[in-house]
Amino acid sequence: MPVRYTPPAPADLLPVPGVRLGTAAAKIKRWERDDLLVAAFDAGTVAAGVFTRNRFCAAPVIVCRRHLEGEGRVRALVVNAGNANAGTGDAGIAAAEATCAAVASMLGCTAREVLPFSTGVIMEPLPVEKIVAALPAARNALAGDHWFAAVSAIMTTDTVPKGASRRIAIDGVPVTVTGIAKGSGMIHPDMATMLSFVATDAPIAAGLLAAATRELAGASFNCATIDGDTSTNDSFVIAATGKAAMAPILTANDPRFAAVYGALLAVATELAQAIVRDGEGATKFITLAVDGGRDVAECRRVAFAIAHSPLVKTAFFASDPNLGRIVCAIGNAELPDLDPSRVSFSLADVKVVDNGARAASYTEEDGQRVMKEDEITVRVTLGRGSASATVWTCDFSHDYVSINADYRS
Amino acid sequence: MPVRYTPPAPADLLPVPGVRLGTAAAKIKRWERDDLLVAAFDAGTVAAGVFTRNRFCAAPVIVCRRHLEGEGRVRALVVNAGNANAGTGDAGIAAAEATCAAVASMLGCTAREVLPFSTGVIMEPLPVEKIVAALPAARNALAGDHWFAAVSAIMTTDTVPKGASRRIAIDGVPVTVTGIAKGSGMIHPDMATMLSFVATDAPIAAGLLAAATRELAGASFNCATIDGDTSTNDSFVIAATGKAAMAPILTANDPRFAAVYGALLAVATELAQAIVRDGEGATKFITLAVDGGRDVAECRRVAFAIAHSPLVKTAFFASDPNLGRIVCAIGNAELPDLDPSRVSFSLADVKVVDNGARAASYTEEDGQRVMKEDEITVRVTLGRGSASATVWTCDFSHDYVSINADYRS
Repeated sequence: MPVRYTPPAPADLLPVPGVRLGTAAAKIKRWERDDLLVAAFDAGTVAAGVFTRNRFCAAPVIVCRRHLEGEGRVRALVVNAGNANAGTGDAGIAAAEATCAAVASMLGCTAREVLPFSTGVIMEPLPVEKIVAALPAARNALAGDHWFAAVSAIMTTDTVPKGASRRIAIDGVPVTVTGIAKGSGMIHPDMATMLSFVATDAPIAAGLLAAATRELAGASFNCATIDGDTSTNDSFVIAATGKAAMAPILTANDPRFAAVYGALLAVATELAQAIVRDGEGATKFITLAVDGGRDVAECRRVAFAIAHSPLVKTAFFASDPNLGRIVCAIGNAELPDLDPSRVSFSLADVKVVDNGARAASYTEEDGQRVMKEDEITVRVTLGRGSASATVWTCDFSHDYVSINADYRS
Repeated sequence: MPVRYTPPAPADLLPVPGVRLGTAAAKIKRWERDDLLVAAFDAGTVAAGVFTRNRFCAAPVIVCRRHLEGEGRVRALVVNAGNANAGTGDAGIAAAEATCAAVASMLGCTAREVLPFSTGVIMEPLPVEKIVAALPAARNALAGDHWFAAVSAIMTTDTVPKGASRRIAIDGVPVTVTGIAKGSGMIHPDMATMLSFVATDAPIAAGLLAAATRELAGASFNCATIDGDTSTNDSFVIAATGKAAMAPILTANDPRFAAVYGALLAVATELAQAIVRDGEGATKFITLAVDGGRDVAECRRVAFAIAHSPLVKTAFFASDPNLGRIVCAIGNAELPDLDPSRVSFSLADVKVVDNGARAASYTEEDGQRVMKEDEITVRVTLGRGSASATVWTCDFSHDYVSINADYRS
C-alpha cells in the first residue's frame, strides 16, 4: 500500500469540458483488465508535453515529439499498458504510427492530431492488431466522467490509481484541472515522469502552454525519484481544451494565468508525490530539502545523491538512524570543492550533523524516534550559498526486490 | 557465500620479506574477534596509496594523505574494524594522529611513518583508548606469516577473508607480492576500494611506486562496484620493502618493472573481483564489457549505468532476461549524442540487441539459459569508436536489503 496516499474515488476526478475518455481490454498481456485508453478532445484543444531524455526513448515518445511540433493541436491520446514499445527500432515507430492512424480514422481527425503512449515491458514488439481490434470498444465507452477508469487502465506495477482535480473560478467562470499518472518503478524522471496526463478547459495559448508544461515538470515530476532509473517512456502531457467561457490566455503576465498555473502545479505535485508514495515496495515517504547551495543544480545533485543511495534507502526501510550513510552520500554528490566542515543536516526536528561533525545535542534515541515515522524530512545545509531544492523519494525494501525480481512472470 | 570465490587458506598468503603482521582484540564493537591489525615494515620500505574522492573522507584518509607526502617512507600500518572514524571532524583527525603516535612509540619510529586506517560505522567517535590498550598484544603477535589473521581482523560485512599472492622470479631472484582486501558493501571505488593492502619485497623506487599504484587502482578496484556508494574510507596502499636481493627498480622502462607490475596487477585484480564476488547478498558475478566507444570514460559511464541500475540488478537476481532494463540503463548513461540504432549487446554468447532493436535470432529460451548462470558477461558495442572498458558488479538480492537493514543491530 502506498505511504499515506488515499487514492481518489471515481467522483473525485472532475470532468473537464471538452475531454472524453474510454477504455477497453486489448489483452496485451494475459490479464482480464482494461489495458487500452483513448482520450478524445474537442476541436480547438492544444497540448504540450515533456518527454524522457533516455537515449533509448520509446517509439511513442519519438512519435509524440513529431506530432507536437508546430501548433500542438491534438484530438486524441491513445495509451496502452503491458508493452512499452521501446527498444523496438523502426518497426516500433511504424507500430505507433499505425495505432495513431487507426484512432484518427475512427474519430475523424488526422493521425498527426493523435498522440500515442505505451508502458510495460521493454523490447517486445507492440501487438498493433490487438490494439486496433479493441479501439471500437474504447470509442463506445467515451465519456467525460471516465477519468478513474482511464487511470486504472494504464496501471502496471502501481498498487493504486493516481489522480487529482482542482476547480477554480476565474472572474466567476469555473475552470477545471484534472490529471492522472501511472508509475511506481523505473522512476527518476529527467524531463517528466512515466506517464501523466493533465487536462484543463482553460483557454491557454499553445506557446504559453508549452513553456508552462516544461516549468511544471521541473517543479513536480522532476523532483521525484524511486530507483534512479529514468524510463524510456516518460511522458507528461497537458491538454487545454479552451472550453471555459473566457477569452484566450495568451501571456504569462495575464493574471488569470497565475490562477490556472497554481491549479496545474497543485495537480502535478500531488501526482508526482503520489507516484513516490506508491513507489515499488515503499514503506516511507522521504523529503530531501537542501539549501545553502550556490545554485539549484548543486542542491539537486546533493538531494539525488542521498535519494539514490541504496544504503540510505535500506537504512530508512529499517528505521535505523545510520546517519553516516547520509554523510557518505552527501560526500559523493560530485561537488568537488564542498567543504564538509560547513555542512549540517537534520532529520525532522533532530539536528544530526553540525558543521561537519555529529551535533553535540544528537542522541541515538532522538534519531530512532524520527526514523520510525513513515514520512520524514531530511534538511541539508551546504553553507555556501542561498539556492535550495527539494526532492521526494521512498525507501528500499524487500518488496522492491520481490516486485522487480518477479515483474515479468 | 561469495560467487565462485574460494577464500585463501592461511598458507596461500605468502610472507613478504620485510613485512610482519599482528592482530589483537580491541573490542571496538561488542564482539569477541580480533579487530585490530598492526603491520610492521623493515626500515627502507616505501609506500604509495590512492584514496576515496568522497568529500566527507574519513579522518584516517586525511592523515594517510599527509603522512604519504614527500618520500613515502613507512614503518607501520594500524587498522581497526568496527568504527570508520568518518564524519568525526577535527576530533577524528586528532584520534587518528594519537593512534599513530602510540604505534610509533611502541615500534620506535616517527608518527609520520605510521599510516592509520579505519572501517566500520560512520559518525561515531573512535575509541582510541581501546586501540592503544590492545597495541601491545598486536605487537607481540607480529609475524611474517600472519596475513590470513590480518585480513580476518579487518572484515566487517565480508563473509570471507580476501587475499592473494604471486611469486615471480626476476633474474633468478624470487620476488613476492601479497595483498589483502576487505569490503562488501558501500562499494563503488572512485580512486580505490574500501581497504586493500598489498606488499612486495621488490625494490621499487618511491616515485615509480606512486605512479604504479594509481595505474593499478584504475585497472582493478576502480572497475568494481557493488552498490554505487563510494565509501568515506576507501584506501589502497602498496608497500615495497626492497628486501629482494636486487638493485633498485627506478623507472618504468626497467624490464624488471613489467614483471613486478604484472604480479601486482594480478593480485589487485583478484582482490577487486573477490570484493565483488563477496558483495553484500551477491548471488551472481557480472562482467560488463563495453567497446566501440569514443573514449574509455564513456565506455565506463555506460558500464556503470548498467551496473548501478537497481532494476538490472534485481533482474539478474531473478535470472530474468528482462533485457529492456539493460537497454534503458544504456540510454541513461548520459551520452547525449548516442545513436541507439548503432548500439548492440549480447549476454554471454547470446546476441540480444542488434543495431538498436531486438536481434532477429534472439529467443527467450536462450536469454533464460544464460541468465541462470552465476557468472555472466554482458558485452555492449556502442558503434562510435574504438575505446573499451570493463567493470565488474554483482546482483541485488533480498539479502542485500536484509544485510543493510540490520547492519548496526
